[in-house]
Amino acid sequence: MEKFLQIYNDTNRKLKSINFAFAVIGWDSQTEAPKECFDYRSKQLGTLSEMSYVLQTSKEYVEAINHLYLERENLDKVLSHEIERMKKGVDQIQKVPMDEYVKYCQLMGKSEAIYFEAKQTGDYEIFKPLLGEIVDFKKKYIKWLSTPSKKGYNVVLDEYEEGFTTDDCDKFFAVLKEKIVPFVKTVTKKKLKFNQKWLTKSYPIDKQKEFTNYISQVMCFDLSRGVIKESEHPFTTNTHSKDVRVTNHYYENNFISAIFSAIHEMGHGTYEQQIDEKLDDTMSGGGASFGMHESQSRFYENIIGRSYEFWQTHYEKLQEYYPKQLGKVSLDDFYKGINLAKRSFIRTDADELTYSLHIMLRYDIEKKMLSNKISVDNVPAEWNKLVKKYLGLTVKDDKEGVLQDVHWAGGSFGYFPTYALGSAYAAQIYHKMCQEIDVKQILASGNLKGINEWLKEKIHKYGSTLSPKQILLNATGEEFNPQYYVDYLIEKYSKIYEI
Amino acid sequence: MEKFLQIYNDTNRKLKSINFAFAVIGWDSQTEAPKECFDYRSKQLGTLSEMSYVLQTSKEYVEAINHLYLERENLDKVLSHEIERMKKGVDQIQKVPMDEYVKYCQLMGKSEAIYFEAKQTGDYEIFKPLLGEIVDFKKKYIKWLSTPSKKGYNVVLDEYEEGFTTDDCDKFFAVLKEKIVPFVKTVTKKKLKFNQKWLTKSYPIDKQKEFTNYISQVMCFDLSRGVIKESEHPFTTNTHSKDVRVTNHYYENNFISAIFSAIHEMGHGTYEQQIDEKLDDTMSGGGASFGMHESQSRFYENIIGRSYEFWQTHYEKLQEYYPKQLGKVSLDDFYKGINLAKRSFIRTDADELTYSLHIMLRYDIEKKMLSNKISVDNVPAEWNKLVKKYLGLTVKDDKEGVLQDVHWAGGSFGYFPTYALGSAYAAQIYHKMCQEIDVKQILASGNLKGINEWLKEKIHKYGSTLSPKQILLNATGEEFNPQYYVDYLIEKYSKIYEI
Repeated sequence: MEKFLQIYNDTNRKLKSINFAFAVIGWDSQTEAPKECFDYRSKQLGTLSEMSYVLQTSKEYVEAINHLYLERENLDKVLSHEIERMKKGVDQIQKVPMDEYVKYCQLMGKSEAIYFEAKQTGDYEIFKPLLGEIVDFKKKYIKWLSTPSKKGYNVVLDEYEEGFTTDDCDKFFAVLKEKIVPFVKTVTKKKLKFNQKWLTKSYPIDKQKEFTNYISQVMCFDLSRGVIKESEHPFTTNTHSKDVRVTNHYYENNFISAIFSAIHEMGHGTYEQQIDEKLDDTMSGGGASFGMHESQSRFYENIIGRSYEFWQTHYEKLQEYYPKQLGKVSLDDFYKGINLAKRSFIRTDADELTYSLHIMLRYDIEKKMLSNKISVDNVPAEWNKLVKKYLGLTVKDDKEGVLQDVHWAGGSFGYFPTYALGSAYAAQIYHKMCQEIDVKQILASGNLKGINEWLKEKIHKYGSTLSPKQILLNATGEEFNPQYYVDYLIEKYSKIYEI
Repeated sequence: MEKFLQIYNDTNRKLKSINFAFAVIGWDSQTEAPKECFDYRSKQLGTLSEMSYVLQTSKEYVEAINHLYLERENLDKVLSHEIERMKKGVDQIQKVPMDEYVKYCQLMGKSEAIYFEAKQTGDYEIFKPLLGEIVDFKKKYIKWLSTPSKKGYNVVLDEYEEGFTTDDCDKFFAVLKEKIVPFVKTVTKKKLKFNQKWLTKSYPIDKQKEFTNYISQVMCFDLSRGVIKESEHPFTTNTHSKDVRVTNHYYENNFISAIFSAIHEMGHGTYEQQIDEKLDDTMSGGGASFGMHESQSRFYENIIGRSYEFWQTHYEKLQEYYPKQLGKVSLDDFYKGINLAKRSFIRTDADELTYSLHIMLRYDIEKKMLSNKISVDNVPAEWNKLVKKYLGLTVKDDKEGVLQDVHWAGGSFGYFPTYALGSAYAAQIYHKMCQEIDVKQILASGNLKGINEWLKEKIHKYGSTLSPKQILLNATGEEFNPQYYVDYLIEKYSKIYEI
């Protein structure tokens, strides 16, 4: 046991140092690397990946994990859970035939470029053969990795959201279909009357940046352990709890975008900064899952950031930054403007209310593709049918349809559901939070310290030492229950739209 | 042979990817990493170093280099020279006893912290035992690494400036002692009469940054293959010819510092950007030596940047940036201001004329320490004696004396001479350049393209495929000759000071 632990820890130490290099280099690539450097850079990243791969697949490391997995009852809880997670990687290595794995990696090496060409020209036929190959691999992958207790779509889902099953998701989306689909129709039929000229005015970018700094203070995002910078697409990266970085992107004609991107990314960032620093040296640092991470970013962005109470406290400040544009806009009109619900084609532009419907249709299609219910020939038609069904819209072309997201080209099946799950976790967590602390009072206090502290104790500090299901259960006292999400959305939008 | 070449190339590929990670992480550390991240970061860097060390000292890599070294006559010239350079590392590994090496690394791990404490308190006694240990190691190191053709101080000198010997340096410094020491006395006795109020005015930093960008255009520093940023101490870093980064530091009350730091660092940067890109994938990318690198930065900074002709073209532009501060200052007065000669205590603040005298005394002391002519007890007294002798000044305390530089604490013996050699190379190169191209006309043209091109063809493109001696010989048609440097300084300063 001692020997296996030593191999395990020593290999992890090396893997972590390479991961650290990846994180810093990746950050640099997206924020300031000069444009001519990428050929060379990708070669170096290739070599570092190779070194990481050799470590991860080394016989002694695999053997150590297998051994520790069998003995996991004798390990402390944190390590035992970590070993369970690591075992997934080992299984992949052992169960996926090497030649198939190499072929898939080669496919991944060119797939995004092909996808982007298809997207640019709006020609699904360019993407189709590639998608076919990826889906074929995923189907075989599911077969290789299946166990008696984990089969079919559950295999890929579990890789993104540990412990969640197709049953869980089916139930979740069934509730949305029943409650949210018709509610969206009702809401979007109504026309919200308010002064909306301010939405399309020009908002100088230097002031947007200053306001982002103000928001970082409100959120208590710790800049001695973090960085805020710019990039084409906002993102969060972290190397450990004391180095968490977020970016934002500023549009002169869409200042709302930057405000909520900032809150969203700093939501991810706050989660990472509040993870117990003792976990920094383990493989259990970082958030618990994709869904749990998204729950935190969306909690801060939507439930807090798009609440009336938040802007009761901060709207005056925003008006000070933009007296010309917002000086005569009432808080009520501002609140309506940031919460407009609109049926739309593009997921990333969707509002809080309609967002999960975009996910639902992707989930439906993924399941059907992986269980042979539809072939890649029929994916666009299926897509357009579901957009009509869930959102009541007619897709004009594949650019605003099936080609809009890069995920499938990157081999990410089972990932989309975590976006919607995150929003639903957030509502369930918020419900519990309101029972335990006075959220309105905290929002009136000027900063989110009280909220951060509650989340730290209930969720953040655990990092990935517990499964998302376990964290949710511990934090809220009950299993995942999508009803909170439905109730939250209906209550909020009924009020705004006076339904 | 084939097999050894494969091992050699494959190991280099991995070493280069780790070096690449080091360069990007180092850049990040000095320009934007949050202050709380460094404990974790140093652990990761430690692990990456360890991985690099294991590769460098692996039996098969050492064996491959030894074999290729013996067969170097059969390799192409570039590779043959590269192998000669790599052999030095291998010799270190083979000839330095492991336990001594480990002890020295541990010493290095704490030495800078001790040095900084000594510097802060001005107490040489804190630094003395450490310096003693370092010098003891260096003396043993010289013994281990000595060969019939390379002994004593030459062993360490050769590591910084390949092929240069104590004889070369002795001759060089003898000329300086004979010509520059008395000349400095003459110059600094004279008082330069001109309006110098502008030197201490306030120069808003945003304009300094804009002017730095202007300078980057003048120098044709390619921002599609480079970055300019800020840091506490200006530096240049490069990962390869298409990613070269420089920093600057701006002081509101010392705008001259930023201008010449920018030119200096972009001088280093231009060298790196102009190295043949075919060398990016080899171990022969990067400048030829410390001295050659410094020759380029100082050439741009001093010979070009502090020339009258440069400012004839660009001074008006500078006045546009600072009309209040410089509007009424004549070009002549500006030129005098940026070329003031002053005997001073601190090397890094020294002007172009007196700079090399600071190096000279360090060289004298290093040689004496390593050949047992003085003990560490006597280093401060020796220092102060030489400052008196060469600069005519009386050192008040060790802060402005022996404790001012970090180099010895970092184990860098043999490094200082390269600073002065660089200045002297620059003058010799400049002399040849003036015979071949019309430098004045290029300076009048508005940018330095013509100069860059000449330097690229004569020096830069070779990277480190040739020794600095060979490059100098090829570029100028003669061996290193310090007379050019002496002539250049005396001519320039005689004119300014009307001697």
